[in-house]
Amino acid sequence: MKNFQLQIPTKVFFGEGVLDKLGAEAAQIGRKALLVYGQGSIKRNGVYDKVTAQLAEAGIETVEHPGVKPNPVLSHAEEGVRLAAEGAADMIVAVGGGSVIDEAKAIALGARNAPPLWDFYTRKRTADDALPIIAVQTVPATSSEMNAASVLTNDGTKEKFSARATSLFPKAAFLDPTVTTGIPLRYTAYACTDILSHMMEGYFTTTAEWIPIQDGMVEGISRGVIEAMQRLLSDPKDLEARSAVMWAGALAWSGLLNAGVEGAALPNHMIEHPLSAHHDIAHGAGLSIVIPAWLRHMKPHISKRIVRFGRRILGASEQLEGLSEDAQADRVIEMLESWYRRIGTPVTFAEGGIVDPDIEALTEQALKLAEYWGIRGYSAEDVKSIYHLCGRA
Amino acid sequence: MKNFQLQIPTKVFFGEGVLDKLGAEAAQIGRKALLVYGQGSIKRNGVYDKVTAQLAEAGIETVEHPGVKPNPVLSHAEEGVRLAAEGAADMIVAVGGGSVIDEAKAIALGARNAPPLWDFYTRKRTADDALPIIAVQTVPATSSEMNAASVLTNDGTKEKFSARATSLFPKAAFLDPTVTTGIPLRYTAYACTDILSHMMEGYFTTTAEWIPIQDGMVEGISRGVIEAMQRLLSDPKDLEARSAVMWAGALAWSGLLNAGVEGAALPNHMIEHPLSAHHDIAHGAGLSIVIPAWLRHMKPHISKRIVRFGRRILGASEQLEGLSEDAQADRVIEMLESWYRRIGTPVTFAEGGIVDPDIEALTEQALKLAEYWGIRGYSAEDVKSIYHLCGRA
Repeated sequence: MKNFQLQIPTKVFFGEGVLDKLGAEAAQIGRKALLVYGQGSIKRNGVYDKVTAQLAEAGIETVEHPGVKPNPVLSHAEEGVRLAAEGAADMIVAVGGGSVIDEAKAIALGARNAPPLWDFYTRKRTADDALPIIAVQTVPATSSEMNAASVLTNDGTKEKFSARATSLFPKAAFLDPTVTTGIPLRYTAYACTDILSHMMEGYFTTTAEWIPIQDGMVEGISRGVIEAMQRLLSDPKDLEARSAVMWAGALAWSGLLNAGVEGAALPNHMIEHPLSAHHDIAHGAGLSIVIPAWLRHMKPHISKRIVRFGRRILGASEQLEGLSEDAQADRVIEMLESWYRRIGTPVTFAEGGIVDPDIEALTEQALKLAEYWGIRGYSAEDVKSIYHLCGRA
Repeated sequence: MKNFQLQIPTKVFFGEGVLDKLGAEAAQIGRKALLVYGQGSIKRNGVYDKVTAQLAEAGIETVEHPGVKPNPVLSHAEEGVRLAAEGAADMIVAVGGGSVIDEAKAIALGARNAPPLWDFYTRKRTADDALPIIAVQTVPATSSEMNAASVLTNDGTKEKFSARATSLFPKAAFLDPTVTTGIPLRYTAYACTDILSHMMEGYFTTTAEWIPIQDGMVEGISRGVIEAMQRLLSDPKDLEARSAVMWAGALAWSGLLNAGVEGAALPNHMIEHPLSAHHDIAHGAGLSIVIPAWLRHMKPHISKRIVRFGRRILGASEQLEGLSEDAQADRVIEMLESWYRRIGTPVTFAEGGIVDPDIEALTEQALKLAEYWGIRGYSAEDVKSIYHLCGRA
């Protein structure tokens, strides 16, 4: 096991009705909140009303910053920084999915540190200070409610990078699974793909021979997500399944599951981020295109691990009988693709509506991410070859 | 999933050499430490020298409170409270196993709250205030380094009770698996039994029909502990196996795995605590006696769960072929007993050296614990019947 340091200080409130505790919690943190949210779905599902009532009852003034995009952009975050300064906000209440919470983190950084904000995303600077954040998660997927990372797209340069600082852990996270029952199945599938991908990254990139505690957690939670998605295909309002997805979504990328895992890296996110920065595609949908391609590219090195994934997570057994390890790995990748298609998320550029991608530009950005994130072993040829595999018929 | 609130604020430092960071971390917390430890094993394995050197280099004065017993007692904790007051300690550094950290928590409570200290253990009072604690775990088993609980035995009344307060989470926990390679196999077996028991309690008592995220984590970590113990039987110095046990030991009772689990309770600890309060037996050894007895008593209600435990954690498969569910459950309990015996921990009173136990007195104390811990459904007859099963030939 690799040495690690781990602290997840976020106070998590989970379950039906937990928003009733938001006001009291917020009152312990500040008096004036910048309320960050997205395109208005929280007004339709009642969460906006609950949150604003809670803040008002607790005597907390609010300044609103709506309009966060699904892939949040730098210019909008900078607008949030100005609003926070004008309104003298002393905390941020982020209400929405990972995008909203990620932009809230960007604003929290910008509000307490001199510009340019983008420097934190190109890893030129780190920051010990940020406005405190309360996260109300409504579309579980990214663990942003329980981690210290923020992903942002520079709408000038079309770069999708990430910042990380201990100060970005939300002080409190509110997870009420009942607010997620109305998420359309297609977006639920993207979310489950994203959640699984956060666990697959470490699982497939580790150089450890034997790391049973972390593998055991990843395998268990992954099976749970797959079971939950299966239940949701039958009944999208199944609250137990929504709860399982929500809790898995918070844990998967919280840092817990990768702690101590030698070699853990994010190559699939490195390949995907340029895609959803350049094309109008959800991050989860981009991942279900990238992951099978990456697995095919990496197969000569990780076939044993791919087979383990198939057996322990996808439940493969008789499907692999009589096959060589290499053929078993192929079969597992096909099973994963079938599962992606079955839940409604694309596995090729064409299925994802991506036509004529600029593979040179995508590769250039992926290699920048490799540098920022310290991912080794990928030449431009490797990356291009993976993008070409994404385009297979 | 049940509603829950979860926060584990402890900063965990894991890996070889992490004690090198102790001084800097302690200096952020206080200037004068009460150094709590046990019977002196930390002087033999070099941990004492490292810790005191770190504290001295950081300019932190120390007052020593050695002599914590394996089942720590109230009178010794009260002595610690007096020492902390005389020395004006502003933090506690606990160096040892769960017993040492548990007594340190008692002292932390006593140093900041008026007596009687025992009131916190009989749940007459709770406390928001305690001295800050740094935990250096040297015998992983109880998760005390990463949770808010403290178990203490009243040496006057022979009651072994527990206190719980958010203020008792250690500020920082140092887990260096290299300091555990010398733990004798017998004590390692007790530790693994204790770690597994913390996960089994929720796993077997939950009333949830389907709780895949938590079940998945418990099943994965439990298999990891069993694999690690197997490796240690071959090579007690296997550092990867020691690391797995140490990390599992921190997580198992941290609160993470039980969060959201409907009905989770601690009946096996309720039955065991009176045993190790009245008899000279390690807590883990007491548990391996109690658990099979409890499973036999509960079998009519939880046979499905027992079979799942057998299949998913013990790897039972052909052993159960052709058997009824009830017979399968019996077989799984026997497999668990065989495993306990194989690793060297007792499964009956006789094997544990407990002769003529006073079942009336044990039962009386167990029922008090049921009351304090809110465990329902156990009559005096039930408890006696479980103790009698512990005495089976």
